Amino acid sequence: MEDASNHQNRLTATRVGIDTSQESVAYMRDDCLICRAEGFGGQSRVEVSAGDKNIIARLNVVESGTGILSPGYIGLSKVAWERLALEEEREVSVSHPAWVSSLSHVRRKIFDLPLSQKQFNEIVRDIQAGRYTDVHIASFLTACANRLDINEIAYLSRAMVDIGARMTWPDAGIVVDKHCIGGLPGNRTTPILVSIVTAAGLVMPKTSSRSITSPAGTADTMEVLTRVDLDMETIRRVVQEQGGCLAWGGNANLSPVDDILIRVEKAMDLDSEGQLVASVMSKKIAAGSTHILIDIPVGPTAKVRSMSAAKALKQVFERVGACLGVVVMPVITDGQQPIGRGIGPVFEAGDVLAVLQNREDAPADLRERSIMLAGLVLEMVGRCEAGHGKALAQQLLTSGAAWDKFRGICEAQGGLRSLPPVYFRYPLRAKSSGTVTAIDNRKLANLAKLAGAPNAKSAGIRLLAKVGDRVCSGETLLEIWAETQGELRYAQSYLVQVQDMIQLE
Amino acid sequence: MEDASNHQNRLTATRVGIDTSQESVAYMRDDCLICRAEGFGGQSRVEVSAGDKNIIARLNVVESGTGILSPGYIGLSKVAWERLALEEEREVSVSHPAWVSSLSHVRRKIFDLPLSQKQFNEIVRDIQAGRYTDVHIASFLTACANRLDINEIAYLSRAMVDIGARMTWPDAGIVVDKHCIGGLPGNRTTPILVSIVTAAGLVMPKTSSRSITSPAGTADTMEVLTRVDLDMETIRRVVQEQGGCLAWGGNANLSPVDDILIRVEKAMDLDSEGQLVASVMSKKIAAGSTHILIDIPVGPTAKVRSMSAAKALKQVFERVGACLGVVVMPVITDGQQPIGRGIGPVFEAGDVLAVLQNREDAPADLRERSIMLAGLVLEMVGRCEAGHGKALAQQLLTSGAAWDKFRGICEAQGGLRSLPPVYFRYPLRAKSSGTVTAIDNRKLANLAKLAGAPNAKSAGIRLLAKVGDRVCSGETLLEIWAETQGELRYAQSYLVQVQDMIQLE
Repeated sequence: MEDASNHQNRLTATRVGIDTSQESVAYMRDDCLICRAEGFGGQSRVEVSAGDKNIIARLNVVESGTGILSPGYIGLSKVAWERLALEEEREVSVSHPAWVSSLSHVRRKIFDLPLSQKQFNEIVRDIQAGRYTDVHIASFLTACANRLDINEIAYLSRAMVDIGARMTWPDAGIVVDKHCIGGLPGNRTTPILVSIVTAAGLVMPKTSSRSITSPAGTADTMEVLTRVDLDMETIRRVVQEQGGCLAWGGNANLSPVDDILIRVEKAMDLDSEGQLVASVMSKKIAAGSTHILIDIPVGPTAKVRSMSAAKALKQVFERVGACLGVVVMPVITDGQQPIGRGIGPVFEAGDVLAVLQNREDAPADLRERSIMLAGLVLEMVGRCEAGHGKALAQQLLTSGAAWDKFRGICEAQGGLRSLPPVYFRYPLRAKSSGTVTAIDNRKLANLAKLAGAPNAKSAGIRLLAKVGDRVCSGETLLEIWAETQGELRYAQSYLVQVQDMIQLE
Repeated sequence: MEDASNHQNRLTATRVGIDTSQESVAYMRDDCLICRAEGFGGQSRVEVSAGDKNIIARLNVVESGTGILSPGYIGLSKVAWERLALEEEREVSVSHPAWVSSLSHVRRKIFDLPLSQKQFNEIVRDIQAGRYTDVHIASFLTACANRLDINEIAYLSRAMVDIGARMTWPDAGIVVDKHCIGGLPGNRTTPILVSIVTAAGLVMPKTSSRSITSPAGTADTMEVLTRVDLDMETIRRVVQEQGGCLAWGGNANLSPVDDILIRVEKAMDLDSEGQLVASVMSKKIAAGSTHILIDIPVGPTAKVRSMSAAKALKQVFERVGACLGVVVMPVITDGQQPIGRGIGPVFEAGDVLAVLQNREDAPADLRERSIMLAGLVLEMVGRCEAGHGKALAQQLLTSGAAWDKFRGICEAQGGLRSLPPVYFRYPLRAKSSGTVTAIDNRKLANLAKLAGAPNAKSAGIRLLAKVGDRVCSGETLLEIWAETQGELRYAQSYLVQVQDMIQLE
């Protein structure tokens, strides 16, 4: 197609000083001749090009009388300005975006027809190039939810790997990785597991994403304790020095389209099976992993709610792994309630430190779960005989070797930080005496998010009663923590709205 | 839930003079205390309340150094300002929007579970209240595409009827209506059909939507010839005077949520079966219709591509109609190519006038199709015996009775307008001689839209060759028309990109 940007629609770029989050917005005056000549209106998307960079932006039309924009200028929101790497007074050209032909593949999927590797490649390429608006991405994600077969999940994974950077570890034959399906607030086993298995000499270049729909992802929690936004060079150096890392994957450009999809999934509060498997596999393969442990917690309010669903998901992981040529070991675990006491970045980081430091007040369930999973990793790669992984993991933790390794990794990533202060607290007290019979993971997660987690690091929950505990009337069941009074109030008002967050009998 | 707006987060409202189209945007300073207290950031949605009105808006954060916003003020985009019906210097309150519980129903649907009447009611109520962002609406539409059963389509239709206004016609026992599934550019039979059947004495209060994915809807075309944005009172008066009207449904507040859904469908370029049937049925039932003719054109590039799909859709319409207690008659018609010569509002309006005025240059196919459909309506309600409808319709058209009625309706709606001027033309010429064997409806529709239709009324296509015509090399197959050179260029560049818009052999 003839590129409309050849037609010399040039304007001078300026920052308007408006933060539009992740969506690029361009501002043009309503009397702008280019708007008129091109037929741009308030509904339009426009392509803005500067040098070898170009973005698709939503167009907002500015009234000429306001003084926000001088004639001959185009305003750009913060994220648009950054994506174009602009300087003030640079000229940019503005045109209609080209026809996005891969949207016809999305339509195919909406009508339940299978897509090919080539079609997924084209969709992923257009998403990466910014040609999909959030509405298109939402439609793609919804269409794929529950509708991808094994081949399609592998195609999507491969398309996402191929669009990004890829790490290789030529010196390590075996590269291990681990992922938890989630749905259990506070289940922060990863930092402990990485510390144990790298203390055992394995290579584990762990990159995590931030929270999708939970109150904290591993990257959110680790960011409390050290720097996690590492570039590829730094990740490589940390892993060479320490055998492992605990980094956020976003800066390493591994499967970058996954990050775009996750941002929209978060706005939709959606997390579907095919997308989930493709997301996990693309990140792991791009990170160079050969052996991957998948933790699948099952419980009535976990992400996976029944044993049959867990077994189905286990099989999907195994079969997609086989398609993609990696060893995948999915493990089904107990997901009836949160693991650990803290929910939200700072509180989960506190639990992790307590376990690694072998402190008496460390949550026993988090310790046990981490040892069990680390033991399976050690067995999966033949680091010990089957049945002996748990004992080896326990010994590496108890001896302090894992804590030494954790500190080493944090130092290599930029230094171990101490826990930040916490601010506003609201205690939820038991209205009667009894035994805790059930805890609703989802409602607890919502509560922590309403309090501000994970963006507010010190927001979250301390869960003081677990299933089986006897509590007396008036005893504190949990504490809500927030960084602002407004958010604390907001979380409190949710408590009034919901029933049965913690059930007593 | 406790309403956070009670907490007195008050700011003074000001128009910032930015047109953000249909999405409400609120602008707050980055040093605003309410932002900090409430934990608002660039990703937030906020609820803005003024008096008894409130909206959910996307938050854009303005740097305090820019002068766009003074301290203590909140800026509102054009559409947000209008929805709140504000005046300058009014105080508004700002809060976190309440938890949108009906999103859990959308998630249910994504995972292919059936929804109840109550669940559809809740979804529709939240969409109407502005609690869904475009991303949520896109997800709801995609989840429903291809996944609604007959009961669910009826539930959704009823929910959409109940949220809006409803017209009643106590003096008329029978109220007829008509809808075309679309996919055929230029197929503008409705204004002709309404003129014929109201000339026969039937009551047909026709409200149409604007284009969803086509270069023009009936409302877009009729707007060229008369006023269509009528309120309910005016519609009632016009129908009382004339027996029918040709209005845009948007201002009458009939099934208002359908209009919201259609706006997002348009951005997605999506039009699915269940949604389509619910959209049509909700509009018709809200308009008080008792007998509804549905035109289903079938062709390889029409919206419905195979006879089996057409028969399936016919059955869905009949069954949903039965659930909802109205008579629905779906008719399967030939959809292999456009009907009439013009595509785009002004060019389609020209065709309609030519047929109604019995002009020699009137497109014969548009005339024949309109007479056939009008005849079926006359038979469906018993206005004549079966098999005699076509002759009656033809006589009402040829006698000038339909043209008189059309002028009467236009005069009652605000006056019959003459066709506006057209501007920039580009002719597509045959590269060889031959017979036209196929015309691609979709590519033609895209071409007309790229030229600016339907927003640019004088943009579109004049199609000069139809299937079966002999053309010589160099003869004009079609003309593209645009209101701006930029749009004409954009449409031309699409011609270079696509193959086989008009096939010659």
